[in-house]
Amino acid sequence: MSAIITFTTDLGLSDAYVAAMKGAILGINPEAKLIDISHSIHPQNTLQAAFVLNTAYPFFPKRTIHLIVVDPGVGTRRRAVILRTPSADFVAPDNGVLSYVVPQSPVKTNKAKASLRQVELPTEMKAVSITNSRLWRSPVSSTFHGRDIFAPVAANLSLSLPLTDFGKTITSLNLFPVSRPYQAADGSLIGRIIHIDSFGNLITNIKSLDLPRRNKVIIRFGNQSIFRLSRTYAEGKELLALIGSSNYLEIALKGSNAQTFLKAEIGDKVKLRLVGKE
Amino acid sequence: MSAIITFTTDLGLSDAYVAAMKGAILGINPEAKLIDISHSIHPQNTLQAAFVLNTAYPFFPKRTIHLIVVDPGVGTRRRAVILRTPSADFVAPDNGVLSYVVPQSPVKTNKAKASLRQVELPTEMKAVSITNSRLWRSPVSSTFHGRDIFAPVAANLSLSLPLTDFGKTITSLNLFPVSRPYQAADGSLIGRIIHIDSFGNLITNIKSLDLPRRNKVIIRFGNQSIFRLSRTYAEGKELLALIGSSNYLEIALKGSNAQTFLKAEIGDKVKLRLVGKE
Amino acid sequence: MSAIITFTTDLGLSDAYVAAMKGAILGINPEAKLIDISHSIHPQNTLQAAFVLNTAYPFFPKRTIHLIVVDPGVGTRRRAVILRTPSADFVAPDNGVLSYVVPQSPVKTNKAKASLRQVELPTEMKAVSITNSRLWRSPVSSTFHGRDIFAPVAANLSLSLPLTDFGKTITSLNLFPVSRPYQAADGSLIGRIIHIDSFGNLITNIKSLDLPRRNKVIIRFGNQSIFRLSRTYAEGKELLALIGSSNYLEIALKGSNAQTFLKAEIGDKVKLRLVGKE
Repeated sequence: MSAIITFTTDLGLSDAYVAAMKGAILGINPEAKLIDISHSIHPQNTLQAAFVLNTAYPFFPKRTIHLIVVDPGVGTRRRAVILRTPSADFVAPDNGVLSYVVPQSPVKTNKAKASLRQVELPTEMKAVSITNSRLWRSPVSSTFHGRDIFAPVAANLSLSLPLTDFGKTITSLNLFPVSRPYQAADGSLIGRIIHIDSFGNLITNIKSLDLPRRNKVIIRFGNQSIFRLSRTYAEGKELLALIGSSNYLEIALKGSNAQTFLKAEIGDKVKLRLVGKE
Repeated sequence: MSAIITFTTDLGLSDAYVAAMKGAILGINPEAKLIDISHSIHPQNTLQAAFVLNTAYPFFPKRTIHLIVVDPGVGTRRRAVILRTPSADFVAPDNGVLSYVVPQSPVKTNKAKASLRQVELPTEMKAVSITNSRLWRSPVSSTFHGRDIFAPVAANLSLSLPLTDFGKTITSLNLFPVSRPYQAADGSLIGRIIHIDSFGNLITNIKSLDLPRRNKVIIRFGNQSIFRLSRTYAEGKELLALIGSSNYLEIALKGSNAQTFLKAEIGDKVKLRLVGKE
Repeated sequence: MSAIITFTTDLGLSDAYVAAMKGAILGINPEAKLIDISHSIHPQNTLQAAFVLNTAYPFFPKRTIHLIVVDPGVGTRRRAVILRTPSADFVAPDNGVLSYVVPQSPVKTNKAKASLRQVELPTEMKAVSITNSRLWRSPVSSTFHGRDIFAPVAANLSLSLPLTDFGKTITSLNLFPVSRPYQAADGSLIGRIIHIDSFGNLITNIKSLDLPRRNKVIIRFGNQSIFRLSRTYAEGKELLALIGSSNYLEIALKGSNAQTFLKAEIGDKVKLRLVGKE
């Protein structure tokens, strides 16, 4: 059976960097099935990579290998790791790109930007630090570990080599705290825009389970108010809010682009006011 | 033998939406061969999707499954359908994206915009309305049927499930009339630009069979005239006209971009005057 | 075993041109593995195609078939060729896109632009002129040989047909001289920017072997000076120089875009001054 290897990178598709990685993989496992998740991560934006990965990897079959190459520290002493969870394997730099994969105690914070912290892995997850250079390309460039280390490691992993062949077991990873909404003094919930998709839909860190089941809500962004939750992009008024396909609250503009209309940016606040009693 | 499934969507490649669809397919049929036709359809432009699909699907092997996800009505009561033709299968919303696949009586119209109409299928084509939710992902989001309905249906179809397992047979589809040139009072033929490709070539709805074999033609766009048909992009004057690779009359600018030079837009008129007798 | 076919084109990904080529290939060899190198070559820029191809093809397994469709002369009398080297096969127009594949005597020139010249192939390489139309699609359009000639030829080649089935042996190709730095009167080395990647890194024609091992160097671009070579994008000052992953000297801006900062363009000069004795 042919293993599946996915790619999440900031390398773009105009250069041949991604193709060089794929060539390196096929040289080791010619039967690997190669699937792009995205190559349009904003250069070196590890937090965006973490989010985008999270909207795709749960939909892949068990034992898929996810390769993430958003790597501002390439060639420095940052670790390269393999993370094995009950559902999939991840090959990545240890720089926060796996923040949505490992369960974390939530941090309700007012800050738009997060910094990395060391997080212990739960017992059902295993990880190794990638140090065994015999499973890499040779020579290794100091600027493109995606091609020379991560790709060959993912390819060798797809041939079912044991995890410990790649390096020593580690028990924690460097992760960003996953951004969660927090409660303001007046009782409303304050979330933030964490992603804007190519339709211009504003995806917030407010999840469906943050919404009280029986309350009405008013969603405020800047000086705009939305007075109800819609079920689809086609119903409701011009500006609408709904729970999107990854279970986050989104703000959208019917048949158009909410980002352009609202001049919204990642990090902007979204306020949720509950109306009436539960 | 591994089935081929193609993708024509407006989902872009920067988000992970397309990857989520591919993951959903590989979970059902890990051997499916996944080929992108385009993910750059203008958001919700079903007519453009119909045209772009038509420039690619005839070149795929028989029994290829074509998945089209340009779906402004997602979550509303618009139908989802499978269309089976003698050459291929199509999985799509019933919103006009299959307008070039089903043969239609031509409509010669002065209007730049078309509206949907109900068209009976010819006997060599079969279709079903997709209603059997046991062949979908569960739960189904109300905003991304591409991932939760269309992708699993295409995957199950690639495993050779019979058509009627997916839903009830239907005998008509909602299609746009295929735009055709019309004859003006002075005897000239008036066509329109229906697509502009990434080279800036202007593709019209005038087909090679609309051109009289032995006549000379003058092609007019705005105040520009082109006095002959070229055979290739490399011959002829700066501004040139030729029959392109999908058999439509195109206007091109030698070594450059005709759209920018002519400030042309989709829907603009192109006039064809015949010179001399046949 | 499934053959690998790669694609390097200027066809973009918004139209269905690339998909039509892939469909044509899969109709002949349904088991071919199709890998994109790049579809973002600047329209008709054969020299850029040659460079981008060169940064990817060496990383693919032996006997990979590389298909290059950057073809301003399509439909004219320019030749179509197959080139077989000890490591791979190339299917392309004979217009310079293979300039980095065939070894050439270097030309140290002050000129930014190069013109094609006839180059004899070394004995370990074989080539044929593609003339046998029975191995093409029929009918052949005069504007899209990528779909109607190059794709079917690559597909038939992947089925192990002998080279001479496709046409007559030829012993030379039309190639651009590979741009090399030259020595100025003051002893410094003058190179040029030959590629700018999507991160804005400026890739020059100065290779690692052009740099004296024990000398210090000063790199000058416009009125900016860089006083040392860095090993990674993360070390050094804001503006830095390093040997990139394809062994060319690059100028980069730490965590940002050097092209925008320096207003650099392809063809711009980069000066390398050696400091001290070897």
